[in-house]
Amino acid sequence: MAGDVELLPSWREGPARRALVDLLERVDDVPPERRVAVLDNDGTLWCEKPHYPQLDFLVTELRERAASDPSLRADEAYVALLDGDRAAIDRLGLVTIGLRLMELFRGQTPEAFAVRVRGFFDRLHVTGRPYRDLTYRPMLELLDALRRAGITPMVVSGGGQEFLRAVSLDLYGIPPWHVVGTTVAYEVQGRAGVPVLRRTADLLGDVDEGDAKVANVRLHIGTRPVLAAGNSAGDARMLDFVAADDGDGLALLIDHDDPAREYAYESVAGSFAAAPVLDMAAERHWTVASMRDDWTTVFG
Amino acid sequence: MAGDVELLPSWREGPARRALVDLLERVDDVPPERRVAVLDNDGTLWCEKPHYPQLDFLVTELRERAASDPSLRADEAYVALLDGDRAAIDRLGLVTIGLRLMELFRGQTPEAFAVRVRGFFDRLHVTGRPYRDLTYRPMLELLDALRRAGITPMVVSGGGQEFLRAVSLDLYGIPPWHVVGTTVAYEVQGRAGVPVLRRTADLLGDVDEGDAKVANVRLHIGTRPVLAAGNSAGDARMLDFVAADDGDGLALLIDHDDPAREYAYESVAGSFAAAPVLDMAAERHWTVASMRDDWTTVFG
Repeated sequence: MAGDVELLPSWREGPARRALVDLLERVDDVPPERRVAVLDNDGTLWCEKPHYPQLDFLVTELRERAASDPSLRADEAYVALLDGDRAAIDRLGLVTIGLRLMELFRGQTPEAFAVRVRGFFDRLHVTGRPYRDLTYRPMLELLDALRRAGITPMVVSGGGQEFLRAVSLDLYGIPPWHVVGTTVAYEVQGRAGVPVLRRTADLLGDVDEGDAKVANVRLHIGTRPVLAAGNSAGDARMLDFVAADDGDGLALLIDHDDPAREYAYESVAGSFAAAPVLDMAAERHWTVASMRDDWTTVFG
Repeated sequence: MAGDVELLPSWREGPARRALVDLLERVDDVPPERRVAVLDNDGTLWCEKPHYPQLDFLVTELRERAASDPSLRADEAYVALLDGDRAAIDRLGLVTIGLRLMELFRGQTPEAFAVRVRGFFDRLHVTGRPYRDLTYRPMLELLDALRRAGITPMVVSGGGQEFLRAVSLDLYGIPPWHVVGTTVAYEVQGRAGVPVLRRTADLLGDVDEGDAKVANVRLHIGTRPVLAAGNSAGDARMLDFVAADDGDGLALLIDHDDPAREYAYESVAGSFAAAPVLDMAAERHWTVASMRDDWTTVFG
């Protein structure tokens, strides 16, 4: 491929880089309707520790509201978050808490919600970086390389679809229509001639993890992508969906094994997969990218 | 715009062509995240008379199955279709009949369904053309002009999303991930490591008409498009959604007023709109394209 030396400069030579370059070089053999890559977001395109950025956004919103509206402390999920009560948070669970937090935005238009999200990304993460700088440089390079090869990168996140869409073009060059995630239901209101969309506090469908990621790839994309990237048990079914085909699909697992530059953790077995993902990667046809060994740089 | 003379060659000079050329010329003023066009399909991109092509496909499938499986005649909707019983069809309604017909494909993979659909498009329509040649040449030219201007064309159809996705790249150059329509729910089956998608016979969400088109634009696209095109009452809310903005959105209504070259009919008031669409176009900020006056050619 012309310009090969320019490709993926932050990726060290090794099996992961070779598998990606091989995909970029054989794109002419991939049918046009399969030239799509699906990438998880939290822990795959940006840092998800110590908390998901979306959770930090929601808690920030909650704090601001609670400062002027003490009645919010009638909700046990809100109290647990405001007080940083780890035991209560674990007992309630992240999905329950997330659903309760959706109440904060009931009735908002998508435009008003997006303004709140964009403002949050200028705030500082505990590492001292603004949240908008938590993206992984090697993955941004991969997005660019995919686009140049004619493979359309799309995000399939377990996080909120509307949350990520508010910043995806800015952070990744990915327009909102190529972002899939957990989805809020809207009501269409407004008089004749002037429809207005307003958020409900209900999910449309399931949380976008596990089998739901496979169903959502079908719903939103309608093809079997040629590349899937993820880092957690919630991505396992999507990686299998891409890799279990006739052999030309590539599944890439990001391994968080770099405590010096990021965090060291491995996704463990949970509700969405039967085994730790590194064991699954070894059994299946997945390619593993070590953040420590395969990336010369982590952040942009 | 350079090459302006090449644009939209089958469109006669007039208000509709001028409005489209104006949009193409002011695209630099449109924010990148709004450079999307949403186009209805039946009656907007291809001919929907005397029946929706999808209905002809379904009846063709039903006839083939019924020839070897007489038990299908136990279903009154199937009998109405097989016998061409217009009164029974009208009494049952197209939505009920469509839902019954979804049973024919329960358990199919998306790939198997797509093969059936593609095969159907080689068959002949009552006009003598293969179904794949029922597309409108002026609208294909519009899709090309939009793409060249950096506006991504997407289909938002009341018809089946999977039906249209099977042929959208071939007919329109539009990949499956830019096709939204009425959606079948899938089950994710298959053992660990090998997920398999299989059709159910249930809808996911509402039939994609009226308010549902607005909600689905949000769900699948996540922006307010800069152009919407349609031809029926089911498109009215989507056209309003695009045109009722701050004034830079263009709503285009295709008027079927050409009995010599296609059909002459006007969409009348129904469940999705309070008034005939031509009256609505006159009241609102919609642009009307007359097939008879604005198009030098209808089919490709």
